[in-house]
Amino acid sequence: MAPVAAATRWRLLLLVLSAAGLGAVGAPKPPNILLLLMDDMGWGDLGVYGEPSRETPNLDQMAAEGMLFPNFYSANPLCSPSRAALLTGRLPIRNGFYTTNGHARNAYTPQEIVGGVPDEEHLLPELLKRAGYASKIVGKWHLGHRPQFHPLKHGFDEWFGSPNCHFGPYDNRARPNIPVYRDWEMVGRYYEEFPINLKTGEANLTQVYLQEALDFMKRQQAAQRPFFLYWAIDATHAPVYASRPFLGTSRRGRYGDAVREIDDSVGKILSLLRDLRITENTFVFFTSDNGAALISAPKQGGSNGPFLCGKQTTFEGGMREPAIAWWPGKIPAGQVSHQLGSVMDLFTTSLSLAGLVPPSDRVIDGLDLLPAMLWGQLTDRPIFYYRGNTLMAVTLGQYKAHFWTWTNSWEEFRQGVDFCPGQNVSGVTTHTQEEHTKLPLIFHLGRDPGERYPLRCSRPVLWCLPWPAPPLPALCPAWPAFLGCSHLPAICLPLPRVHVTPTWAAFRDGCTGGLRVRVWGGRRSSVHGRQHQLGKVHPGAPASEALGQGLAVPSRTLETLPGTFVQL
Amino acid sequence: MAPVAAATRWRLLLLVLSAAGLGAVGAPKPPNILLLLMDDMGWGDLGVYGEPSRETPNLDQMAAEGMLFPNFYSANPLCSPSRAALLTGRLPIRNGFYTTNGHARNAYTPQEIVGGVPDEEHLLPELLKRAGYASKIVGKWHLGHRPQFHPLKHGFDEWFGSPNCHFGPYDNRARPNIPVYRDWEMVGRYYEEFPINLKTGEANLTQVYLQEALDFMKRQQAAQRPFFLYWAIDATHAPVYASRPFLGTSRRGRYGDAVREIDDSVGKILSLLRDLRITENTFVFFTSDNGAALISAPKQGGSNGPFLCGKQTTFEGGMREPAIAWWPGKIPAGQVSHQLGSVMDLFTTSLSLAGLVPPSDRVIDGLDLLPAMLWGQLTDRPIFYYRGNTLMAVTLGQYKAHFWTWTNSWEEFRQGVDFCPGQNVSGVTTHTQEEHTKLPLIFHLGRDPGERYPLRCSRPVLWCLPWPAPPLPALCPAWPAFLGCSHLPAICLPLPRVHVTPTWAAFRDGCTGGLRVRVWGGRRSSVHGRQHQLGKVHPGAPASEALGQGLAVPSRTLETLPGTFVQL
Repeated sequence: MAPVAAATRWRLLLLVLSAAGLGAVGAPKPPNILLLLMDDMGWGDLGVYGEPSRETPNLDQMAAEGMLFPNFYSANPLCSPSRAALLTGRLPIRNGFYTTNGHARNAYTPQEIVGGVPDEEHLLPELLKRAGYASKIVGKWHLGHRPQFHPLKHGFDEWFGSPNCHFGPYDNRARPNIPVYRDWEMVGRYYEEFPINLKTGEANLTQVYLQEALDFMKRQQAAQRPFFLYWAIDATHAPVYASRPFLGTSRRGRYGDAVREIDDSVGKILSLLRDLRITENTFVFFTSDNGAALISAPKQGGSNGPFLCGKQTTFEGGMREPAIAWWPGKIPAGQVSHQLGSVMDLFTTSLSLAGLVPPSDRVIDGLDLLPAMLWGQLTDRPIFYYRGNTLMAVTLGQYKAHFWTWTNSWEEFRQGVDFCPGQNVSGVTTHTQEEHTKLPLIFHLGRDPGERYPLRCSRPVLWCLPWPAPPLPALCPAWPAFLGCSHLPAICLPLPRVHVTPTWAAFRDGCTGGLRVRVWGGRRSSVHGRQHQLGKVHPGAPASEALGQGLAVPSRTLETLPGTFVQL
Repeated sequence: MAPVAAATRWRLLLLVLSAAGLGAVGAPKPPNILLLLMDDMGWGDLGVYGEPSRETPNLDQMAAEGMLFPNFYSANPLCSPSRAALLTGRLPIRNGFYTTNGHARNAYTPQEIVGGVPDEEHLLPELLKRAGYASKIVGKWHLGHRPQFHPLKHGFDEWFGSPNCHFGPYDNRARPNIPVYRDWEMVGRYYEEFPINLKTGEANLTQVYLQEALDFMKRQQAAQRPFFLYWAIDATHAPVYASRPFLGTSRRGRYGDAVREIDDSVGKILSLLRDLRITENTFVFFTSDNGAALISAPKQGGSNGPFLCGKQTTFEGGMREPAIAWWPGKIPAGQVSHQLGSVMDLFTTSLSLAGLVPPSDRVIDGLDLLPAMLWGQLTDRPIFYYRGNTLMAVTLGQYKAHFWTWTNSWEEFRQGVDFCPGQNVSGVTTHTQEEHTKLPLIFHLGRDPGERYPLRCSRPVLWCLPWPAPPLPALCPAWPAFLGCSHLPAICLPLPRVHVTPTWAAFRDGCTGGLRVRVWGGRRSSVHGRQHQLGKVHPGAPASEALGQGLAVPSRTLETLPGTFVQL
């Protein structure tokens, strides 16, 4: 179906709230929101996603009681930009949390990096405050460790966790150990007050994070305040750890021990919701920040199931995530949704649950997933795979087009750093940045989820989008012709190399003659489908003529932007 | 736990039957047995095993109501020997259904091959007849097309199907189209009376096979006769096909259409059992003959999930199979068993269900899975991976040792025949037959199901088996020392290259001084653990000294047979 228009969105919300028995008198109390974000956990790590050892009974049960999303994506194959995207609802290239694509570690923020999430970005907890939510982050922040980037400066009311990964131990002179905070106060450091035994893998951090979560939920429920809990734990990020009762219990080794403890913890969290009798007023979503880190596998890294490569790459293994939505009585049990989903959707969906509208002064990429979750509706939308500032690939429907491929440099690869161990797809898992913008590498992800068999394209043709006609205003004369394309098979989309800056999102809506460009990205469902004017551009002219900034476009007959599709 | 001894087996059987309310008066009516054997379907093709499109709701439901085996294996990575092993309970190298390892297609039986299953082999339906079972095979036989190999010569009462794969169409002169039989009568040929449209993929064969199954079950139930139905359908073997209502309905293309029709058919079969009210007296098992044929993927081949390579190889992708046991009221619902299982176990388990004992004059490799299914007990046993007459690998517990690796020849590979598309594990997916008998390639399948990370072994050491002591008779003085090994970590087992003939199974049991060899293979649980005399063999002497036939053993301090483990 088409994106829900503004009016429909509000009708939907009211329906949800009244169904929860909360919309009848006065201001409705919106549902609690619980986002369980794993760190480097792969799509294939859960029993319900096929992990052969099947050691996640609680998560599998959560899926049986909720909705499973097999086609759910990160916004970036790396921790920091993925988390920034989740909390802003915007692609890293819009929210500023990216670097160039010169190396794999785009905008990853170890303690040496002094940057962080820009002040002008609106984070989810900041917006939820308007609806009376109490918000807490438990675990890894990773959006900057300087005071101005502190989570409590960006809308969270409470924090227990760390600004960085739990790497270490360091010498504490040239490089201090990573601090752990309770709210504004630094309460210790990893490997000191919060020990991690690298030899045995023992650390009780998941238990601490579990208690923080349980305590927060109990307190907010006692105060009858809606809560947003962002449970961003990191036991599955190398060096992986588990507490003593779980060490040595998995068939999968230490990584599996960590997964088992997480699974057990999720079971305890859902149990508390049951005990508090708030399951029908609490929306829970489980996912991960990026694909399993195969560079750390098998001892310290997880599984991406049948998918290609892992963390750091824009192949499916790098960005497809486990995803389960759970809301008993609202989301029907035991369902599978083939909606293309993104971590950015958790931003928009959460606002929708809270009865709020996303900021209207910027492009929001997140989609409201409630129509998918509550009524099984499917919305056409693209998934963009960025690495740094380069749009590497796009998925539409079941077709994925790679405009650029690379895993890592030959130099790194020869030193033993391998993001695709045991995998080698000729011309696809390349160790130089290979350009395919003129003839993209296209895969059908249904027939070929492992991206092993590029479709053969003899010539570049327009990738026509299956876009449902009814809800779309016919803004431009050429629109019907555009719609007519939907009957053609999707084959190849020639998309030029594009370097953009975050400011490109500021272009105004409109419709002119000449080249018509439709900007995707789902700012909000209500503005989905608008056409954006890029200036007086003529077919054959480089888009940079109109934009005049940051675009390096090898001009052909078709020019476009990342996240845009062109009707000539 | 240890294999069940003879007395225990009978006690178990009586328990089962009395639990079914059938053991009280007179001769109990044993449960119906329904084996659903797929063709080239991969481990990863079912939703419950993680296939991202999740289009097998009936099979997933069957798993939810029954028991899932994530570690279940074929006896060979090719159709014919796998089927021969299933129906005889014996490794192909014992039942004679193998060739040399000179090429990949070991004992595959196209219509040019005149051989078939030996007369002296006892097939499951032949044995079940003794307990009053009516037996039918629906679908592909593949154990010889000459009259003496006909299924009805080997115990089946009925047959609807074909002796070969549905390859074609042929010219009908030099090579006829493959015939289709009803019992003794040839009722037509593929591409003639039984059309398969290679262009559209349309064929209604699965519907025909479904009706044959439903009709047979109804008739036997009306006659109050226990039945054995071997539903060996082949829609997922290239060229894959589906009937018109299913064509174009899958997210996975034509292969997915075939899977969807099979899933729908399994749903209808289980529904009939419910309608006939015989679910509690019908044991159903779903599995496949070998891994997905990646040479035919993605259009005509399936998925092996996270596993390495596919059909024709002895990597996990070639031999690990989807497996679901279903017996409401007997097998507890929603369970996962990590028992190492084999298609050969279906022979022994079926006999056990029928209250029969396997033949005592030969080695039976199949294990009785009822203890695993009914009480969740686990039995240590090896999985042998043969290619032709070569023991390529063995799995014990979670450790797999490759003694030989190869996928296919460079010549074939360079012609585009690839059994491991997109996969390349250096030194593992080799295109020459690489010997590792002195220092086997060892993988931990729990931590590394994809066989990507060989464990590093600095020297060959004895692979000590975790073998539970209590039920084992102390036949030989050295036995306790052998048991003592179980505390050592399993690392490397040096196993020599062995060429054996089917006659090697004829060696008598016994125990002597000198080299003691324990033959694994689980003839029957009751004789598990016996020691076999190979003659007067001294440590350091080649085993061929005792056997004198077909052994090419690079003599070291440790010599053994395929399927044997040695205590010096």
